[in-house]
Amino acid sequence: MIPPGATLGMLGGGQLGRMTALAAARLGYRTHVFTPEPDSPCAQVCAEATVAEFTDHAALAAFAAAVDVVTLEWENVPPEALVMLAEHVPVRPGAGVLTVTRDRIHEKAFVNRLGIKTAPWRPVHSAADVDRAVGALGRPAVLKAARLGYDGKGQVLLRADSDPTAAWHHLGGGNPLDAVVEGFVDYACEISVIVARSPDGSQRGYPTVENQHEHHILARTIVPARIAPAIAAEAENIAARIAEALGVVGLLAVEMFVTRDGQVLVNEMAPRPHNSGHWTLDACATSQFEQLVRAVCGLPLGPTDRPCDAVMENLIGDQVGRWPELVAAPGARLHLYGKREVRAGRKLGHVTWLKGFGVEALG
Amino acid sequence: MIPPGATLGMLGGGQLGRMTALAAARLGYRTHVFTPEPDSPCAQVCAEATVAEFTDHAALAAFAAAVDVVTLEWENVPPEALVMLAEHVPVRPGAGVLTVTRDRIHEKAFVNRLGIKTAPWRPVHSAADVDRAVGALGRPAVLKAARLGYDGKGQVLLRADSDPTAAWHHLGGGNPLDAVVEGFVDYACEISVIVARSPDGSQRGYPTVENQHEHHILARTIVPARIAPAIAAEAENIAARIAEALGVVGLLAVEMFVTRDGQVLVNEMAPRPHNSGHWTLDACATSQFEQLVRAVCGLPLGPTDRPCDAVMENLIGDQVGRWPELVAAPGARLHLYGKREVRAGRKLGHVTWLKGFGVEALG
Repeated sequence: MIPPGATLGMLGGGQLGRMTALAAARLGYRTHVFTPEPDSPCAQVCAEATVAEFTDHAALAAFAAAVDVVTLEWENVPPEALVMLAEHVPVRPGAGVLTVTRDRIHEKAFVNRLGIKTAPWRPVHSAADVDRAVGALGRPAVLKAARLGYDGKGQVLLRADSDPTAAWHHLGGGNPLDAVVEGFVDYACEISVIVARSPDGSQRGYPTVENQHEHHILARTIVPARIAPAIAAEAENIAARIAEALGVVGLLAVEMFVTRDGQVLVNEMAPRPHNSGHWTLDACATSQFEQLVRAVCGLPLGPTDRPCDAVMENLIGDQVGRWPELVAAPGARLHLYGKREVRAGRKLGHVTWLKGFGVEALG
Repeated sequence: MIPPGATLGMLGGGQLGRMTALAAARLGYRTHVFTPEPDSPCAQVCAEATVAEFTDHAALAAFAAAVDVVTLEWENVPPEALVMLAEHVPVRPGAGVLTVTRDRIHEKAFVNRLGIKTAPWRPVHSAADVDRAVGALGRPAVLKAARLGYDGKGQVLLRADSDPTAAWHHLGGGNPLDAVVEGFVDYACEISVIVARSPDGSQRGYPTVENQHEHHILARTIVPARIAPAIAAEAENIAARIAEALGVVGLLAVEMFVTRDGQVLVNEMAPRPHNSGHWTLDACATSQFEQLVRAVCGLPLGPTDRPCDAVMENLIGDQVGRWPELVAAPGARLHLYGKREVRAGRKLGHVTWLKGFGVEALG
């Protein structure tokens, strides 16, 4: 057990790290963030900050010596950095988990090997592969880079009239590329489940929530998901099985589709706090961020019940300008991330509405 | 209005500043702490820290230039420092409020002038004064230094057999001293009310709570206070009247006695977050810390309803060793302050039990 007073090392300096550091502080932990970004959202609330590239081995060595455990808020930290850190300090989740979750090919293959369904897919490594995959899966389909995609980046829609070769070159810019083609899924809604797992293997999951995306970015999470209880239970079971099979220590967020005929298909997953879990800050006794701290420090996991319904809305780009109205709304819980620059598509904050305190107004 | 993204200057680096900085961060503010203490609980969660004495005018000037508004978590900041800062930046609460609340003579006289009762008292400036005061007020009585007392420090009980002259010399150590003698109050319980007040004069109060002290240090706050509703309402009215008369911007905590015959007497007050308001972190939509940020930044004050009963227990000295049990208790919300050194009488953390989640176990 890593007791309060110890220092949590955080790889990545965004809002997920920031909210984790705030939760860690409540339990008496110090946070030391490592990020290339100066004056990051996370550094503003940390005891220590290292501003360096993830390839800076001297900085990584000094960081490893200064912290008691390492976790992350960004799954694209180079695996070499994780391996190097792990020689000196526990890294949770570890490089093995990241190897699976950071690559869509490994991720989908891993899930399918557990007998869990995904959208139909094919790994592709060339324009010819894309052509064959589209032939097998039909159109529309989506070509997605295997690595480094988020919020719709690294994706190309393959319509009836799209040229697969052009799509391949558009995505890769002529560079070697691993990617997948995913077949069309006629889904009724998108859902997600977040599971926490401790070093001793104990697990706790949050209830299934429903996610609405706009322009490929999460706009809104509705709690609970408006689906049949049996489907929610299946989603929670899927997430728990994947977390256990991965042996993740920390959090695992699993995004899933519910098809119109009631099938649950895994879309993607992330071994870190997840935007679809921000509602837990205001509606649960233990937020996802506190749960991450508990998991990586080996403390008992906290309760994950949902005492009331909730809706979380992201404040993206100039939507952050709504803050004066939101800070005045009695049922709204406003969270802002300390980012100075307002850019289109940038997540600058979120607001949680709790049922009985204004969530009804959202319809 | 001082908008999110601005920097809150915090005078004092203890747990009250720490919890305020955590609340400020949630709303997107940066906190810059000014404290003589290196590695203070507050600095661990702040964007910036100045470690300097409150008499260091160069450091104060640089601090004033770096922040957008100043508040405090310690009422004994030298008034000269507040006056100097106020030439450059809003200081909330201001030096005028502190002049009243930091001196028991001014404080009691101010309250009495509003027609609000205190224990019977006399200002004393010499051993002869103490003798006369005890003659007028009877015994037992308490001799209290006018300034710089907290947690029972700076107090001498005057029993039937106490020598007033010896008590005077014990308290002052031979130095000039302003003090008060307070007559005995046969009280049924101690209560407190915290009121927030904005620059525009709007106010919101939290419900009346009951406080249990051990060795002159707050041990436990019980929410709501176990008193008649009319007495609770009177206490809330008293606190609101004092806050308005003082013109405080920020928080005012008013400690009161309820006598066995149902009178409400003001004991003392503090224009800052208060230990008896820590329960609001876990039981209210707006904690006292967030409310302080809202008040000093001119945001609308948040709701102060009590959705459930609660008990807050301080973790003092080696009581912090209870953390493994508390972090595992489903109904307990543990808060630790990041203080490395465990000393007798030192507040190292607290735990809030919410009714329906274990508070019953406390009886």
